[in-house]
Amino acid sequence: MRAFLIVGNRALTMPFNLNNLTAGRMDVLCRCIAQSLFISHGIRRDVEVYLLLLGEPEPPKAIRVVGSEVKNMAPDERNIAGLLRKALMLGADEWKRSSPGIYIGRKNIKDLLVELSEKYEVVYLREDGENIRDAVKELNNPLFVLGDHLGLSREIERVVLDCAMKIISVSPLSLQADQCIVIVHYELDRIDFRSMLNEAV
Amino acid sequence: MRAFLIVGNRALTMPFNLNNLTAGRMDVLCRCIAQSLFISHGIRRDVEVYLLLLGEPEPPKAIRVVGSEVKNMAPDERNIAGLLRKALMLGADEWKRSSPGIYIGRKNIKDLLVELSEKYEVVYLREDGENIRDAVKELNNPLFVLGDHLGLSREIERVVLDCAMKIISVSPLSLQADQCIVIVHYELDRIDFRSMLNEAV
Repeated sequence: MRAFLIVGNRALTMPFNLNNLTAGRMDVLCRCIAQSLFISHGIRRDVEVYLLLLGEPEPPKAIRVVGSEVKNMAPDERNIAGLLRKALMLGADEWKRSSPGIYIGRKNIKDLLVELSEKYEVVYLREDGENIRDAVKELNNPLFVLGDHLGLSREIERVVLDCAMKIISVSPLSLQADQCIVIVHYELDRIDFRSMLNEAV
Repeated sequence: MRAFLIVGNRALTMPFNLNNLTAGRMDVLCRCIAQSLFISHGIRRDVEVYLLLLGEPEPPKAIRVVGSEVKNMAPDERNIAGLLRKALMLGADEWKRSSPGIYIGRKNIKDLLVELSEKYEVVYLREDGENIRDAVKELNNPLFVLGDHLGLSREIERVVLDCAMKIISVSPLSLQADQCIVIVHYELDRIDFRSMLNEAV
């Protein structure tokens, strides 16, 4: 399994306007979900995506997207935003399903990481971390934690660092969150399919 | 310089509805432009993107996006779609500017590749090509040609193969066009910044 947790610092916690996805930068989160789950003409069934929504009016809320369960999802921002919007119409403390494979709950970063640490090895994606090409060989069931365009606040970062087994960097450049996700998958795919590539890794 | 040419097999050649970007799969082309040009909080100034639009009602048309000239572009699909829509309001045979860094012209694949071969080394991205990790070290001013969700038709592919210096594969899996672009940048960045990574490449 692979999982991603993306922190949306200003991500809206109420149903939002599908014609203005840059409000709260919901567009960033939609792209992160798309890049976590989609390949050409298919969905990665072994992936889970978590979003932590910290914007107005009712933070924090968390969304869980389960690759093996989702249906009728397309990779465009508006389609994914529609599914998130539907989830935000539900009130829920514990995980509650809003559509196939999509759940919402009232969770903060600590709740989420305590829950996820039980099945995943927490990896923090930060620009000064270990080179992913060296680190990728040793990952087992990783959960990659990353921030949206604003990164992580100090308070959130402290909680992440408490749980993280590793800090990994994906590029010599500062990239967008969804680009980091593409690269993580790419490096992991190269390990998983190395026999196809005729590579010693 | 790096450049990308994405073939939109059904991409609309008239101004389209911004609330329905999946018509003609304009969403795919918008994501390709975003992933070609954007890094975190910035634009890659050394990149050009070309789109070949082959859908109704007036194919073919081509769009050129110049990283060093674009202004007021954001990475969300709707913003980029708005700029493409504006370009499609212009009628033009030769390249004509519709907004900063965005040009439209009436060109087919052969016109485009003859023009672009003068300044770029044409590379065709196809799943059975050479492993990018081996091939990346030898690229100079590459123009990467790739198809949208439908790939390339035989007719188009024949023209591309006539001009291509190399055929390269970016992943053991079949990926979406925009994901291929992220990976191409990533591998090239690792070469360009190898001293920062302390790597022998």
